[in-house]
Amino acid sequence: MTNNSKSFSCPTPINQYDKILLAHGGGGTLMHNLIESLFKKYFDNDILKQGNDSAIIDYDKNTSRYAFTTDSYVVHPIFFPGGNIGALAVYGTINDLSVSGAKPEFISVSFIIEEGFPISDLEEIVISIKNAADNTGVKIVTGDTKVIESSYKLQDNQNKLNNINANIYINTSGIGIVYEDMRISPLNCKPGDAIILSGSIAEHGIAVISAREKIEFETEIKSDVNPVNRIVEEIEKSGYGRYIKVMRDPTRGGLTSTLNEIAKAGKIGIKIYEDKIPILPEILGACELFGFDPMYVANEGKLIAVVAGNYADKILKVIKSLPEGNKAEIIGEITDTNIQKVVMRTVLGNNRVLDMISGEQLPRIC
Amino acid sequence: MTNNSKSFSCPTPINQYDKILLAHGGGGTLMHNLIESLFKKYFDNDILKQGNDSAIIDYDKNTSRYAFTTDSYVVHPIFFPGGNIGALAVYGTINDLSVSGAKPEFISVSFIIEEGFPISDLEEIVISIKNAADNTGVKIVTGDTKVIESSYKLQDNQNKLNNINANIYINTSGIGIVYEDMRISPLNCKPGDAIILSGSIAEHGIAVISAREKIEFETEIKSDVNPVNRIVEEIEKSGYGRYIKVMRDPTRGGLTSTLNEIAKAGKIGIKIYEDKIPILPEILGACELFGFDPMYVANEGKLIAVVAGNYADKILKVIKSLPEGNKAEIIGEITDTNIQKVVMRTVLGNNRVLDMISGEQLPRIC
Repeated sequence: MTNNSKSFSCPTPINQYDKILLAHGGGGTLMHNLIESLFKKYFDNDILKQGNDSAIIDYDKNTSRYAFTTDSYVVHPIFFPGGNIGALAVYGTINDLSVSGAKPEFISVSFIIEEGFPISDLEEIVISIKNAADNTGVKIVTGDTKVIESSYKLQDNQNKLNNINANIYINTSGIGIVYEDMRISPLNCKPGDAIILSGSIAEHGIAVISAREKIEFETEIKSDVNPVNRIVEEIEKSGYGRYIKVMRDPTRGGLTSTLNEIAKAGKIGIKIYEDKIPILPEILGACELFGFDPMYVANEGKLIAVVAGNYADKILKVIKSLPEGNKAEIIGEITDTNIQKVVMRTVLGNNRVLDMISGEQLPRIC
Repeated sequence: MTNNSKSFSCPTPINQYDKILLAHGGGGTLMHNLIESLFKKYFDNDILKQGNDSAIIDYDKNTSRYAFTTDSYVVHPIFFPGGNIGALAVYGTINDLSVSGAKPEFISVSFIIEEGFPISDLEEIVISIKNAADNTGVKIVTGDTKVIESSYKLQDNQNKLNNINANIYINTSGIGIVYEDMRISPLNCKPGDAIILSGSIAEHGIAVISAREKIEFETEIKSDVNPVNRIVEEIEKSGYGRYIKVMRDPTRGGLTSTLNEIAKAGKIGIKIYEDKIPILPEILGACELFGFDPMYVANEGKLIAVVAGNYADKILKVIKSLPEGNKAEIIGEITDTNIQKVVMRTVLGNNRVLDMISGEQLPRIC
C-alpha cells in the first residue's frame, strides 16, 4: 500500500465518489484508496502504518510480541460447498495472525443477526466455529450479539418471521504471539528471494459464486476454507522462520491483489510463472464458464511466502510435508526490475503485467 | 449469569423459539438464554467462563494481565443528539475494558457498510472515531472494511445509489493492560459492600429513541456517550483499586439488567434506594412520555462500582472530583438477603423487586 496513487492501475481518489459502492469492499484499488484517503488519514499511528494483516504490538523488549487483527465476514450465501460463514470467520482471522508470523491464541466472536434468522442455522454456524477453534487450538474468550431488523421488513412488514434469507454477519478479532524468529514485512523482500504458494488457487471464490448462482458442476467444487497456521508453525519448528521475508493469505482480490500489495509496499518487482501456479482443472473450467480470471479470485486457505532464495527448496519441502501444503510450488521471485509491478510469464511465453483490479469480480465473498 | 434459569423472571429456553427475535439482542433474559444455551454451550473454556465485560488473559505470572473485548454497534439512527455510532463504538469498547480494571491501549475498527452510504457521513464517523481514540489515548492499530448490498435493494433495484437510509455497522475490539491492584469479579462482592453509580441514568436510550421518532423536547436531551476510563484510572492512582470488587457499565437493559447480572453471578442480594439514583428531570419527563422505566434504559457513559463498604466514601470522593463523575452517588449495598435479586426501596417507602426484562424496550440502541 502506498500513498503514490500513480502506481495503481486505476487511480481514483475517494472524493470522486459521494457514495460507497460495492467495489469499495472488493480488495482492489477502490478499497485501497478508501483506506488511504479516509482511514489512514485519520487513524494514523506507527502500528497501523505497518500495513500487515495484523498489528504487531511490541510492549516491552523483555516480553513477547503480540499480533492483533480483526475481520468482519459478510459472505453470501452463508452456507457454501466446503464450509460456512462460521468456519470462514475463524480460519480467516487465524490466517491473518499466522501470516503475520504469529501463533494464534485467542479470538473474539461477535454476531450481527437479522431477526427471523433460523436458530437451527445459527447452531450449525456456532458448531462450525467451535470445531474450527478446536482444530487450531485457539480459545474463544469473548463475544457479543446484536440483532437488527430484517432487511426484508424495511419496506414490507409481511413475512417478518418467515424470512428465509435473513442475513448474519460475524466479526472475529484475534490475538497471537509472534514467533521469536519471525520478522514479517514487505520491506524485507530482496531481489532473488523466492515466492512460494502453498496450494491451488481460486477455489473459495468459485465455490461461493456457484452456490450463489445455484450452478452445479460434474466434479464438486469446494471452497478451500482452511487454516494455514500449521504451515507457519512447521516452518518455525524447522528452524527456517528467520528466512521468511513476508507472508500473506491471498483472499479478496485473489493472488494478483496480494502480490501487488507486496510489490508496492516492498518497493520491489515480482515475477511469477503461469505454469507453476497450481489450479484444479474443474476450477479452471468454472472460471472460463463464469468469465473470471482465477488470478483475481479469492482463496481462503492458502499462503504466499516470500523467502530467502537459497532456503526456498528447504522451506518448500517443509510445506509439502503437510497435507494442506502438498501442492505447494515455488511460483516466482522478487526482481529489481518492474518495481512495484507484478509480471507473469504466461504459458505462451509472453510477459503480462497483472494489475490490481479496481473493484472486485465478486462481492460478498468473505 | 447462571445456568439456573429459575433465577430469571422469565425462564424461556432458546429452543422454544426457532427464529431469532429482536429481543434476543436486547440484553434481557432472552439474550442471556441464547448465550447460555448456544454460545457458552459450545464455546466453553476457562477464560470465557469469567463472564466479565472483557476476557482477562493471564499468560504468565511474570508479565501483565491483558483484557480483551469485542462489541458490534448497530445503533439506529447512526447520528443522534450527543454523538454518533463512531464515538459510541470507541467509547463502548473502552468502557468494557475499563470496567474490567484495565487501561485501554489498542483497538481495532471494522466497518460493514451498505452500498450507497454517503462518504461524507462516513468521514464524519471516522473523525468521531479518531477524536474518541485521541481523547482516551488509545491507538487504532488494525481494521477492516466490508461492503454489502443495500437492504432497500433486496426487493427493489430502484434508488440504489440514492438510499438515504443506508446502514453502517461497526465492530471494535480492544486490548488493555489490567491494573496491578484490580481483581474484578462479581464473586468478590460481600454483604456490606457499597454500590456507587457514577452519574445520572437513561440519557443514551432516550436520546436515541427521540432521534429515531423525531421528537424534540424543550430542553435538549443528549446521549451520555462518554468514556469511563479516567474514573477507573483515578481510582487506581488514589490507591483504592484493591477495594473495587466489581465494575460494570450499564448499557443495554439499563441499570436494572446490570445489577441483576452482578446479583446472579455474585450469588448475593442487592438493595438500592430510588431517591439516591441521579436522573435529569427532562429524562424523567421523556420516560413518562414514552412509557419507559428509566431503570431499564441504556446508558453509554456511566459506571457502577461495588466497593468495600468502609472505603465507599473515599472512592466516591475520588469519582466526584472528575467532571464526568460529579453526580456520582452511593445508590445501595450488597445484602445477604434476597440472594440473586435486586430490590429497590422506592421513594414511597415500598420495596420493589427489579426483575431483568425478557427482551428490551428499545432495539438497536447500541
